[in-house]
Amino acid sequence: MLEARGGSVPGEVEEVARLEGVDPSKLARRLAEGRVVILRNARRSGRVRPTGVGEGLRTKVNVNLGTSGTVVDVGMEAEKARIAVRYGADAVMDLSIGGDITGVRRLILREAEPLPVGTVPTYQAWIEGVKRYKAMPPADWFLKVLEWHLRDGVDFATIHAGITRELAEKAVRSRRVEPIVSRGGAMLAAWMLETGEENPYYANWDYVLDLFAEYDAVISLGDALRPGAIADAHDDLQLGELYVNARLLERARERGVQVMVEGPGHVPLNRVALDVRMMKAITRGAPYYVLGPLVTDVAAGYDHIASAIGAAIAAAKGADMICYITPAEHLSLPTPEQVKEGLIAARIAAHAGDIVKLGPRAARWDAEMSIRRARLDWPGMFKLTLDPERARRIHSQFGSPTKACDMCGQYCAFLILGKWLKGRSWPSVDEALDRLGDGHRRC
Amino acid sequence: MLEARGGSVPGEVEEVARLEGVDPSKLARRLAEGRVVILRNARRSGRVRPTGVGEGLRTKVNVNLGTSGTVVDVGMEAEKARIAVRYGADAVMDLSIGGDITGVRRLILREAEPLPVGTVPTYQAWIEGVKRYKAMPPADWFLKVLEWHLRDGVDFATIHAGITRELAEKAVRSRRVEPIVSRGGAMLAAWMLETGEENPYYANWDYVLDLFAEYDAVISLGDALRPGAIADAHDDLQLGELYVNARLLERARERGVQVMVEGPGHVPLNRVALDVRMMKAITRGAPYYVLGPLVTDVAAGYDHIASAIGAAIAAAKGADMICYITPAEHLSLPTPEQVKEGLIAARIAAHAGDIVKLGPRAARWDAEMSIRRARLDWPGMFKLTLDPERARRIHSQFGSPTKACDMCGQYCAFLILGKWLKGRSWPSVDEALDRLGDGHRRC
Repeated sequence: MLEARGGSVPGEVEEVARLEGVDPSKLARRLAEGRVVILRNARRSGRVRPTGVGEGLRTKVNVNLGTSGTVVDVGMEAEKARIAVRYGADAVMDLSIGGDITGVRRLILREAEPLPVGTVPTYQAWIEGVKRYKAMPPADWFLKVLEWHLRDGVDFATIHAGITRELAEKAVRSRRVEPIVSRGGAMLAAWMLETGEENPYYANWDYVLDLFAEYDAVISLGDALRPGAIADAHDDLQLGELYVNARLLERARERGVQVMVEGPGHVPLNRVALDVRMMKAITRGAPYYVLGPLVTDVAAGYDHIASAIGAAIAAAKGADMICYITPAEHLSLPTPEQVKEGLIAARIAAHAGDIVKLGPRAARWDAEMSIRRARLDWPGMFKLTLDPERARRIHSQFGSPTKACDMCGQYCAFLILGKWLKGRSWPSVDEALDRLGDGHRRC
Repeated sequence: MLEARGGSVPGEVEEVARLEGVDPSKLARRLAEGRVVILRNARRSGRVRPTGVGEGLRTKVNVNLGTSGTVVDVGMEAEKARIAVRYGADAVMDLSIGGDITGVRRLILREAEPLPVGTVPTYQAWIEGVKRYKAMPPADWFLKVLEWHLRDGVDFATIHAGITRELAEKAVRSRRVEPIVSRGGAMLAAWMLETGEENPYYANWDYVLDLFAEYDAVISLGDALRPGAIADAHDDLQLGELYVNARLLERARERGVQVMVEGPGHVPLNRVALDVRMMKAITRGAPYYVLGPLVTDVAAGYDHIASAIGAAIAAAKGADMICYITPAEHLSLPTPEQVKEGLIAARIAAHAGDIVKLGPRAARWDAEMSIRRARLDWPGMFKLTLDPERARRIHSQFGSPTKACDMCGQYCAFLILGKWLKGRSWPSVDEALDRLGDGHRRC
């Protein structure tokens, strides 16, 4: 960030620009202004694909994984990391809270290569701290654990610095339906309520900035007070924390430390756009990393869908990274299969948003698919799907159709009209994109 | 409709008003104005739940089923009808095109009770007509088959009257990526191109109205020229057909025949709201029945998710009924399990929209769920989910958790903060709804 601010174009910026097909100097300027971050710990240079998050870039998708308080199966978590790589995630967060947390982190850092990896150091600090000190650990313990994570090569880390003691006290006394649903937020709130001290990250923000600067890692400002029910959306607690985060962000910018900001949570559909606009205004265009938003509270078992709805709208309006939600959300740790389902749902949402945000640059994929579809080019279509295996399996679930699929068979619209479409010169991808045009983004 | 126009409140209106918790006289007025339709063939009075579709009512979800050109398994289609009933569909369409079409229709009419059932009579007319006449059947054959359907008790039927011969000729010569993707539309286009005659429904519209009036059934004006690729969205073909449909609709209104209008299809996310506003303006508030809209073309295998995104936005903006899309869309006839998945995705979309459209009337469900969630009341939560079996199965997929779920275990935010939340008086559903308020609908 400091290098970009000096007017040069760092190597990582060149690489991100190449991957995304954007102008490197424009990208460098956005990085300098704090409108873009690049996920990659300096210690992992060469092993991690530098991943840009922010204005003008493709919407990224993050996969959460990690052991739980009750289910510790390291092999399964490693498998989830491999699924994340295989099915096109852009980042992975290891949220382990059970077993050998350090060991799992180091394993995930390897298994998830070349994806950047994030963590929430608070989990380990609180869980191991409470065991070690047989009471709430001292404030500097949180900073020490953070440093371990960065030294291990973590590319970004969620820091719940915005939940001050005052906000934590307000939250537990509030009339919210769900006072605090963030795990890290709850741990810090319990720590502050028990010790009477201020949030250790908030109180030591300059030192936190020093650490992240040292490793050129990205701070993800957590939303400990995100709404966990649509009735709690955009209340004084959520907004109060966002304002604190925005102040902390400005100090990070002054210092040249990269920051993105996390967002909700549960939000009614018609407030998702408002949420993004508000966040972007308050943070002067910082990259927005959203969890969901889930547009209803009732979809347990299918929350990846409730989340895809909100995430697509958020992405179209400017959210920059989507944290996936699996069908197991609100119910259980996910299985690897559920990780895959959640990831693909989030990728659909991200892409639907990118068609709006990036226009033809993103919609080329759709045009290529539809041109093949109109010509019943099945191998061509399968190759372009998010999950070719699944598409092939469904296509032949009642046998192996010859020309059209088993939905219509011989009564496929393209076959019925074959006689009149024969000899038609089919439009090219570029013609289709021309027609979609840039104008559609202004709707 | 004529009864309501006379100033009285028909029995079906009373029943719909009771089911939806709305004012009967207001509902009768909307029916009279053609802003609401009630799905129920007079012949099936007492066997079918009168189902209101339109302004001020809950967004409805339709399940398509029926034999295909290559897969004819009547038992499986009956099972799909039972799944539709069990998992909360509001209507079923039998789109059978293979085997004994009449027999399947009659079976589905029984199996789907008490749900209203719709069909696309064009399929049977074209398929059996071409066989019977060894050529394109005469125009009055299409009307004869329509009458069979209505006499069997079909509550609503898709009539692709808006694709005139001129539009069909334009479509096959167009530069569209996918000229015509509607099966019924393709059949009618082929019929017109082959015979040189005008669309039989369009040419005999008054007679079509007579038939629907006789059975008090609902016309669903089909969108034969819906975009099948986002690059084709809102082109002159789609809009041309919509204008023809709007004119046909006005003639139906004059005659007191109930009509709803069908919509796309594939539409970029930022044009979904525009699509609904445009349709509502052109049709003077007729009920809008949307297929999707799918916000990307690339999601084959997961199109229920691409569709849920568009459908939720459409519903929030005023679409009145959603046609579900299954994960098998673009690939195959769906299995019963895929029917269930598609239905639940569409129900999530409908409900997300209803939170916006209907406010607290819809959001009560969410408040009840979240209040139970904050108290870790698992049986209470399961009962409120869309698919309690699946929620229970996921909840115990790693064993049977005791208090919190296996995502966090002992580190559940509610448990970590238990000490400080103890003795808290939890907000009631009404308090939560008050806070969500009506104001949020104006965002």
